[in-house]
Amino acid sequence: MKRDVVLQCPLPIDSKDTIQLAHGGGGRQMRSLIERLFMPAFANQALETRHDAAVLDVAGRIGFTTDSYVVNPLFFPGGDIGKLAVCGTVNDLAMAGAQAAFLSAGFILEEGFPIEQLQKIVASMRDAASEAGVQLVTGDTKVVDHGKADGVFINTAGIGIAAHGVEIAPRCVRSGDAIILNGDIGRHGIAVMSMREGLEFESQIVSDCASLAQPVARLLDAGIEVHCMRDLTRGGLASALIEIAIDGRVGIEVGEERIAVSEPVRAACEILGLDPLYVANEGRFIAIVPERERDRAVNILRAFNEFAACIGEVRNMEPGRVSIRSQFGTARELDLLSGEQLPRIC
Amino acid sequence: MKRDVVLQCPLPIDSKDTIQLAHGGGGRQMRSLIERLFMPAFANQALETRHDAAVLDVAGRIGFTTDSYVVNPLFFPGGDIGKLAVCGTVNDLAMAGAQAAFLSAGFILEEGFPIEQLQKIVASMRDAASEAGVQLVTGDTKVVDHGKADGVFINTAGIGIAAHGVEIAPRCVRSGDAIILNGDIGRHGIAVMSMREGLEFESQIVSDCASLAQPVARLLDAGIEVHCMRDLTRGGLASALIEIAIDGRVGIEVGEERIAVSEPVRAACEILGLDPLYVANEGRFIAIVPERERDRAVNILRAFNEFAACIGEVRNMEPGRVSIRSQFGTARELDLLSGEQLPRIC
Repeated sequence: MKRDVVLQCPLPIDSKDTIQLAHGGGGRQMRSLIERLFMPAFANQALETRHDAAVLDVAGRIGFTTDSYVVNPLFFPGGDIGKLAVCGTVNDLAMAGAQAAFLSAGFILEEGFPIEQLQKIVASMRDAASEAGVQLVTGDTKVVDHGKADGVFINTAGIGIAAHGVEIAPRCVRSGDAIILNGDIGRHGIAVMSMREGLEFESQIVSDCASLAQPVARLLDAGIEVHCMRDLTRGGLASALIEIAIDGRVGIEVGEERIAVSEPVRAACEILGLDPLYVANEGRFIAIVPERERDRAVNILRAFNEFAACIGEVRNMEPGRVSIRSQFGTARELDLLSGEQLPRIC
Repeated sequence: MKRDVVLQCPLPIDSKDTIQLAHGGGGRQMRSLIERLFMPAFANQALETRHDAAVLDVAGRIGFTTDSYVVNPLFFPGGDIGKLAVCGTVNDLAMAGAQAAFLSAGFILEEGFPIEQLQKIVASMRDAASEAGVQLVTGDTKVVDHGKADGVFINTAGIGIAAHGVEIAPRCVRSGDAIILNGDIGRHGIAVMSMREGLEFESQIVSDCASLAQPVARLLDAGIEVHCMRDLTRGGLASALIEIAIDGRVGIEVGEERIAVSEPVRAACEILGLDPLYVANEGRFIAIVPERERDRAVNILRAFNEFAACIGEVRNMEPGRVSIRSQFGTARELDLLSGEQLPRIC
């Protein structure tokens, strides 16, 4: 092939082809994948330099986080691994009060993976990034032999700008604080689970997978003194509450009837023997705020989801203890599960 | 188990155990892995907040990069996947003129992976991070079912401080610039390959895997006007030269006899039918500098490796063309390989 052909026209990528080891080999095939598939989706100035690292201008305090995504199946009602990989990392930044600005993406592809599926996933990432106002500025692709991965794994790391000076962390939580939940729980886990197991329920359950950048920005812009936030991914609401109670050395009391669970999710959980409190979400979080800010915080989050509500309070009791009251007044203690009810949910 | 036991003493981790799905499940087992294995290795203030994202103070221009590591085998002469995952990302930052400051780490573990091996890998990461002066401030662990990964994959993303105002990128390269290589090539690829294939050579070939933070810092601190740098990983020296020639729209001419290849590597390459110019390195890079800075740059890099040398020049010829002259005066053109001679080398 003539040099100028290589220069201007990397080999075309055919949607009907599959990923080969050579696509991760640092040669012409990898260059094609980058120039033909990744660059058109994510084009921006930093990527355009085509260098080993993006050089960015930032100022002050930043948030920095990472997550790898291994969800199975790759596509599910309400999203796919690409949307998840962008929203999940945007959300982790949001939980630290940082507005996501820049993402990296590391792909581990299994030899034989259909290019067409990769194109769909990359398009989802592009859309989710654009919606969350974040730029994907640097990336990496590795290919492993057939049978040594499971289609595609994606890692994203993110940098966010922490413009608000407030410290947001478990140690900032105080007795009397209100715990606000931004919507109904359990949808992501059940959507993925039912897809994986081929279960059909009366009404399709759609994942809540979404960026939390906006609701969080609205809370902070309104000057709400947020003490802690956490998104309710692996381990669900219960695990998030317990972790904060342990790390913040506080007790927590929540009311079961104040936690919204949709009828289809409740029914599915009953059939599957799952507790919705432990099922993973990808667009749900709790914000822990001083009691005096409770109603204002709930109102802000209701504009995004009608089921946003205050579900409980931080209590001056045994550190690490999370207690849940049923509508009949009985209380039980929540405990960390040993593992997870549903593996590979994100 | 009593709450305060969970609080103060996460379940112990036994080196003789193996990774279970539950270690990635967001419950008690994952907490043990974090508190007992990761935290002791990487302890620092940002990690101590135990939050979804690290909050860091940075100012000005930063470099941001990511790489996933899928090297096979995980342990090889001169390093392992952990050392590689730290050095590789530190080096990508260095190539953009950024001094690595903060790393994230995302682990994808295969069910059944021995805890003892994970402990070794994490210890390597700790040592490499400490040597490179970088803090691991945020992380993530996923576990996939047995047979759906290959032991462990690690992604690291890195943030570096670009203190020197110089732009370092392919587009800054100018005709007449000198190309400096910091040592002999081919050792990493051959070390991994011989380990994987169970080959034994007369003398053991040890990977060059190392942090490039120091040599690069010395170049920049000395005020050398570095136009471009690139580390010679997948695709080796040849691919790095070609990519820079394409992206910088310049031609490049190098002299074969000026490129150091150790005798054992040369012999192994001959036996294996490999071209050392295309074999991956993990501690080698080229710096492209104005001709007048050539000798100063070579001298600085010689302090780190006696084989550092000027290997060629940027030429005003067909953009993207890389030509190599043999010691007999004949010239041949280098081309991007389709894939890679050696898959899963990093």
